[in-house]
Amino acid sequence: MKVPPAIVGVGCTKVREHWGKSVLDLAVEACLKALEDAGNPDVDAIYLGNAASELMNEQGNLVALLADALAIEGIKVVEVRAGDASGSLALHQASIDVISGSSRTALACGVEKMTDVMIQEVERVGMLFEDARTTFHSGITIPGLCAILTKLYMERYGADYEDLVLFAVNDHRNAANNPYAQYPFSIDVKAVMSSPLVADPIRLFDTAGVGDGAAAVVLCGPNDAKRIADTPVAILASEVACSRMSLSEREDLLSIGSLRLAAKKALDKARLSLKDVDFFEVHNTTSVIGVLSLEEIGLAERGEGWKLVKEERIAVGADYPVNTMGGLKGRGHPWGATGLYQAVEAAWQLRGEAGKNQVDGAEVGLTHNMCGLGSISCVHILARWEVVA
Amino acid sequence: MKVPPAIVGVGCTKVREHWGKSVLDLAVEACLKALEDAGNPDVDAIYLGNAASELMNEQGNLVALLADALAIEGIKVVEVRAGDASGSLALHQASIDVISGSSRTALACGVEKMTDVMIQEVERVGMLFEDARTTFHSGITIPGLCAILTKLYMERYGADYEDLVLFAVNDHRNAANNPYAQYPFSIDVKAVMSSPLVADPIRLFDTAGVGDGAAAVVLCGPNDAKRIADTPVAILASEVACSRMSLSEREDLLSIGSLRLAAKKALDKARLSLKDVDFFEVHNTTSVIGVLSLEEIGLAERGEGWKLVKEERIAVGADYPVNTMGGLKGRGHPWGATGLYQAVEAAWQLRGEAGKNQVDGAEVGLTHNMCGLGSISCVHILARWEVVA
Repeated sequence: MKVPPAIVGVGCTKVREHWGKSVLDLAVEACLKALEDAGNPDVDAIYLGNAASELMNEQGNLVALLADALAIEGIKVVEVRAGDASGSLALHQASIDVISGSSRTALACGVEKMTDVMIQEVERVGMLFEDARTTFHSGITIPGLCAILTKLYMERYGADYEDLVLFAVNDHRNAANNPYAQYPFSIDVKAVMSSPLVADPIRLFDTAGVGDGAAAVVLCGPNDAKRIADTPVAILASEVACSRMSLSEREDLLSIGSLRLAAKKALDKARLSLKDVDFFEVHNTTSVIGVLSLEEIGLAERGEGWKLVKEERIAVGADYPVNTMGGLKGRGHPWGATGLYQAVEAAWQLRGEAGKNQVDGAEVGLTHNMCGLGSISCVHILARWEVVA
Repeated sequence: MKVPPAIVGVGCTKVREHWGKSVLDLAVEACLKALEDAGNPDVDAIYLGNAASELMNEQGNLVALLADALAIEGIKVVEVRAGDASGSLALHQASIDVISGSSRTALACGVEKMTDVMIQEVERVGMLFEDARTTFHSGITIPGLCAILTKLYMERYGADYEDLVLFAVNDHRNAANNPYAQYPFSIDVKAVMSSPLVADPIRLFDTAGVGDGAAAVVLCGPNDAKRIADTPVAILASEVACSRMSLSEREDLLSIGSLRLAAKKALDKARLSLKDVDFFEVHNTTSVIGVLSLEEIGLAERGEGWKLVKEERIAVGADYPVNTMGGLKGRGHPWGATGLYQAVEAAWQLRGEAGKNQVDGAEVGLTHNMCGLGSISCVHILARWEVVA
């Protein structure tokens, strides 16, 4: 295998309502932590993933301001947009930049500050990443679309809603040990079922919350990895794929083609099979999306993902540890930051720094981040450096 | 020199007020033309540059819709944002993607539809790409900031406004022969001076207009270039640099550090000197920006750029042909599309297809596109394939 690029520094803010900090403040905080973690190397490029700062924070071109704030002058700066997949896409672009040789080191940051606007505006902005010609103007929201999928999944595959929401319960159990999580506490099925109805049958405790946060990683090429870091993390694969945006145009409502394709490509690229992967960070705006992700990645047959969850086989310590630091529901889901939170958390696991949630002997992790209901999916396979060295 | 990637297909729409077409329609039209020009090869990735579709067209995640509309399924799709430098940044990202080997072929498209909103909203959105903490909330606009620079330039270097606006006159003379230009007619200094005042001393005919348009190119690696195209165009260099966003934080108001740096890096990368460059497509939202660009690229000393213009040394057929197909003022400036219009026009020159505006024996061209007043600059050096082969 060609020696891959590496992650040599990671950092993030806590996900919460950051009333006292601007979207730029959050990005700066995460970047400074990641840079410090890497021993403050020179960086040649900054890649920023952000979904909607113009709409939610009245500031565009955030990445140029970020370079100014970090006092890094004259370097390459690039902002990428893919709704709530923006963070992982920034990581992808940074990784191909380093592979191409255009940059020797790069900083990839994801940030979102969602609490500057009212929840109605958050929902409106979220729908701008779906097809405005159909869904946006009908007034439906992401939880509304997820409700349709949830009902169909339950009917077709015989799952109860109480079974599905165990995905959220798993997230929260893991978030309880993550000091950066927005909701660091356990919940049970009863708590989910007694929380307010958002879009029948979806309950409030089954949906990712609204929060502010930023996460960042420092990347470099293989030759610099061990020079910069004691425990570099290898990016074995970084794959992006799209699928039909409108649910109504997909062959099957309960499929996420972009994820199936990106996961397959990534495993092929890394020359690994699922058996080699020790943990999974997946995109779960609601439980049904999390369950479908298990199926599309290949951990379960179609219609069987909910059984993995019900049998607690996705817990840390079980067969397929999923969302080991809390996932979108527990850690929180600041759109453009989520993909980089996943990368930071995966790096913690692979460096043996995941505390009480450490997956024993974790050598390889897979992360999956997507835009909306899967118009774009981004899959990364990360590994302990020793696996490739 | 390592053999560079190539542009093997180009296409664009006319720049105008496209009342009957959506922002997506425009992007599709440009992409289909570029793909057809390349003989409809398979593409592995689409890179889209767009400044503000969520704000001006109520549709985000345009690149996923573009893949759907082109019926290209499962490929990588990436949207980049850098205000009115978005197009050239999309080209940059596509080029490093091909160099990295992640994609074998890529489509880079830039699009903007600015006439869906009122002019006041266009100005508001434009200012979101400057620092909101200072300029945005003061109510100043891009022409307003350019007016400050124009007055300072005139005072410091002894130029008259009538001298500067010859840059716009040059643009229009070239646009007259470009069927895709928004303003395909000549103007003289008198016409500029009798047009309405926008921001003293800047006149309407000295500012890039508001228009809709899309441009696209197909890229591939060096090994595929001659297989796909008879006349591939080599991307000798693609460089991005940033500088302080706020004018007030720059060492000199009349400098564009990002451009000076990106141009120098690009020439070094291409192992060429300015003498080797046969024509220049530069970013001129107003004439003073065009004149400063000549100086930052190195065609004139500081304070001397206006003399090149006054002596008509930037005309097609003269020493340094500039904006050979009309530039931002004559061809038009649909923000996210401009960088790719420059690439398309440079390809026409290098393929000998520039019609009445053909630069005799053009072998190497330089394009410069930037965000706002230069927070980000992107410079490409393109060449006839024979120059490198």
